Amino acid sequence: MIRLYSYFRSSSAWRVRIALAYKQIPYELAPIHLLRNGGEQHGAERMKLNPMAQVPVLEVSEPGREGADPSRAFLLTQSIAILEYLEETHPDPPLWPSAPESRARARQLAEIVNSGIQPLQNLSIQQALRGNGVDPLPWMRQVVENGLRALETIARSSAGTFLVGDGVTVADVCLVPQLFNARRYGVDVDSFVLLRRIERACETMSCFVVAHPEAQPDYEPGP
Amino acid sequence: MIRLYSYFRSSSAWRVRIALAYKQIPYELAPIHLLRNGGEQHGAERMKLNPMAQVPVLEVSEPGREGADPSRAFLLTQSIAILEYLEETHPDPPLWPSAPESRARARQLAEIVNSGIQPLQNLSIQQALRGNGVDPLPWMRQVVENGLRALETIARSSAGTFLVGDGVTVADVCLVPQLFNARRYGVDVDSFVLLRRIERACETMSCFVVAHPEAQPDYEPGP
Repeated sequence: MIRLYSYFRSSSAWRVRIALAYKQIPYELAPIHLLRNGGEQHGAERMKLNPMAQVPVLEVSEPGREGADPSRAFLLTQSIAILEYLEETHPDPPLWPSAPESRARARQLAEIVNSGIQPLQNLSIQQALRGNGVDPLPWMRQVVENGLRALETIARSSAGTFLVGDGVTVADVCLVPQLFNARRYGVDVDSFVLLRRIERACETMSCFVVAHPEAQPDYEPGP
Repeated sequence: MIRLYSYFRSSSAWRVRIALAYKQIPYELAPIHLLRNGGEQHGAERMKLNPMAQVPVLEVSEPGREGADPSRAFLLTQSIAILEYLEETHPDPPLWPSAPESRARARQLAEIVNSGIQPLQNLSIQQALRGNGVDPLPWMRQVVENGLRALETIARSSAGTFLVGDGVTVADVCLVPQLFNARRYGVDVDSFVLLRRIERACETMSCFVVAHPEAQPDYEPGP
């Protein structure tokens, strides 16, 4: 049994939702509201799930697995680690290409989003800047724009229908939520012609549709 | 032939230096000075290597590999993508455990450093805060402390001699440079008893010794 602790708007949780849907792995969604009451992720029970106070958290308690009682379930955080784990335990259909260089390309593009862009737009930085009287938006917009520009440039040498060749990979799984966030921050994404084309290709796939924030049970309208 | 574009003090380049030494892969070191003249990584030639203007960059031009002329060498950025690529192309000795859950644990701990801590201490954030008249140090110290505390807590369930069991993994490769940086920012790391013990175990290994900033040809003394 797999449970995913998620927040509809978290781009990292969104990545995992796409992968679970793509691989058709059944799971239970457990929403954690990252803003309500100062952030539910900071509560004592939630901190036991993830001392980093972040989503996603994947909880695996498989019948037959040793130590399968709920208190000893396998807890896994960090979206890229979760995606790699899902790939290794549910390899078909794959989210990684098979050749080492293509696999490396897919990981590189995923990491540009995962460690090169997304952490710089996270809540704690926004709060740190705002707490010191600085509007975080212009800076964040610049960071996201620079990252997407690098992504667009690097992807030119590997892209087909998707970021790496003609099959969807972990790189596309990271791209789509990042473009959504970029728009929220007011970044003009239309200049990223290649990334936009790939986003449109992804949007036709059901795994991207069902994983979208607006399709989540904890979705709330708002900016 | 492998060339590593590196900066002695970059913790991400340091991770790759450790892995190359551990796997005894011969390589040529190409230093890029991240501060001199506003940062050599921003020059036109360097931006062709990595449009993100960061190190490390791995350049692979193997004799016999198709398109092996220097202008078509395989360029790879993002330290975790590079480490995974080195593991897949030079699997022995391994930096990943063999069981899926242990592999996931190692990746999780590596990603806590790679995307949860390191990006928040990077130069552009420091410059953004400083440019707005805010001293970045107290905030960075807090971010690094919170991240290391989470790492220490999570690692308790997996650690042996190293972060995951008794063999060195990608998680330890990320830990050691991060502890070094934490000290630079004035974080008191002595309270992280488990992390410190593992750091001492790593420091006895030659791959950690030869990858240290002070052992690099581009090393410069200073804070």
